[in-house]
Amino acid sequence: MTDWTDPATPRTERARSWFEALRTRICSAFEAIEREAGSDAAFEYTAWDREADGAAVTDGGGGVRAVMKGKVFEKVGVNVSTVGGAFAPEFAGTIHGAAADNPGFTATGISLVAHMANPHVPAVHMNTRFLTTSKAWFGGGGDLNPPIPYTDDTAEFHAAFKGACDAHGADYYDRFKAWADDYFYIPHRKVHRGVGGIFYDHLECADDAGFDANFAFTRDVGEAFLYVYPRLVRRRMGMEFTPEDKLTQLQWRGRYAEFNLVYDRGTLFGLKTGGNIDAILMSLPPEAVWS
Amino acid sequence: MTDWTDPATPRTERARSWFEALRTRICSAFEAIEREAGSDAAFEYTAWDREADGAAVTDGGGGVRAVMKGKVFEKVGVNVSTVGGAFAPEFAGTIHGAAADNPGFTATGISLVAHMANPHVPAVHMNTRFLTTSKAWFGGGGDLNPPIPYTDDTAEFHAAFKGACDAHGADYYDRFKAWADDYFYIPHRKVHRGVGGIFYDHLECADDAGFDANFAFTRDVGEAFLYVYPRLVRRRMGMEFTPEDKLTQLQWRGRYAEFNLVYDRGTLFGLKTGGNIDAILMSLPPEAVWS
Repeated sequence: MTDWTDPATPRTERARSWFEALRTRICSAFEAIEREAGSDAAFEYTAWDREADGAAVTDGGGGVRAVMKGKVFEKVGVNVSTVGGAFAPEFAGTIHGAAADNPGFTATGISLVAHMANPHVPAVHMNTRFLTTSKAWFGGGGDLNPPIPYTDDTAEFHAAFKGACDAHGADYYDRFKAWADDYFYIPHRKVHRGVGGIFYDHLECADDAGFDANFAFTRDVGEAFLYVYPRLVRRRMGMEFTPEDKLTQLQWRGRYAEFNLVYDRGTLFGLKTGGNIDAILMSLPPEAVWS
Repeated sequence: MTDWTDPATPRTERARSWFEALRTRICSAFEAIEREAGSDAAFEYTAWDREADGAAVTDGGGGVRAVMKGKVFEKVGVNVSTVGGAFAPEFAGTIHGAAADNPGFTATGISLVAHMANPHVPAVHMNTRFLTTSKAWFGGGGDLNPPIPYTDDTAEFHAAFKGACDAHGADYYDRFKAWADDYFYIPHRKVHRGVGGIFYDHLECADDAGFDANFAFTRDVGEAFLYVYPRLVRRRMGMEFTPEDKLTQLQWRGRYAEFNLVYDRGTLFGLKTGGNIDAILMSLPPEAVWS
């Protein structure tokens, strides 16, 4: 594994190395929670290679999908992927910094979605990534999705990301929280899919100083997630719940599936460009109802 | 109710009257099946009016959504709607026969989706409609969606629609079956969503003779559905099934939800133009799993 702290290492490799290290720490933290609940559930790791067939980019790279189905974590997936190549001409024009005559790109990132067994425990999503075309930038975010919301959980989740933001830009938190509110919204139901979080994109890395600053911010976003989410899980995982609470959760998951399949840009881009289906649809809930 | 057989009645009213009559006969046939299974389940009818707020068309019309949750029919919805008005300028250009300076339209149709309790009983979809802009046309179709396919069910379903097609156009069946195979396909999984049926659109009604011919075909499509589907339900509804069969059905329904939310033109058009959510999403399965 490349050393993400070594400035002599190429940028994409440094970012990839961090995402992999973060993945390992998160999986370990989640497995520790399963142990506390008396379960021996563990993540299963599956490597995949990007297939050229039908893909909108030429071949290159792959990833590792880690999935655990446990007692507390009904289904949690953590995917780290690193791909590169050239966009097909019809896509290149739609991609930041790419063009038909300059279609090359690299992308590395971590994405995580957890659907929880107990409806009092919030579901969660977190994703950070580093992309290069003729430009280079970081993006990412995280949002909390409680079927049964608690104001203190929501406040603590937001406070953790505010801490990460405030250390790197005076306007970051307000901008990125508003961006999440705008993005994680289901127009046809006129509701948000959860209680929000942060969303950011196009943190441009024009030079080494820009890369270092944005990489440090993205690492702090990961650290904030790793700090706050296990706290919320432990707070709620032992609560009693009724069949009505479970039904509330399953109906709420139907909305979540609607958002991801109708609106989520990453999901649609992946599906329509021949990406790895299991990795793309890892975000879908293990069970949902529309009733 | 307008008489759909009276040529002096306006076309949209004749079509609407037929769709409503067909709805009533279908609901009655499905309730009879519930009685045979010892259930007293019945359709519940909910009228809705088109809301102007956020809609891409100006106000006008509404519909009736009929939903039954029974012992054989886990969830079946039959929606008849009749709306009219003017498309917003940004939509008018994308609609057959409409334009920014001629945005008026009417649309009436019936749509039906049945998700069945027993995984041996095929789910089904059927929809027929009549639209007017500066043009007038019928469209529709039906497709069979068995979680556990049986070749004789599939053959009988296709034969019924072939009969309807052959009575109206020598090339109808081949064209409309191929159209269904093309339409009801999930590209990201490289599978069809079911075993097909027929799909047709833009059967133009340039004059009274054209209207009469296409209306007669659309009625025969409805009759074919009403003939064949209850036969298939009765054939399979008493079969034993295992928990593995049920899981197969729930996973298969996840694919069905993916098709409807990612690709189905009617669903996406409805969601993005401010249509009635409950009517649009009536097609989603009562329960689905992604595992």
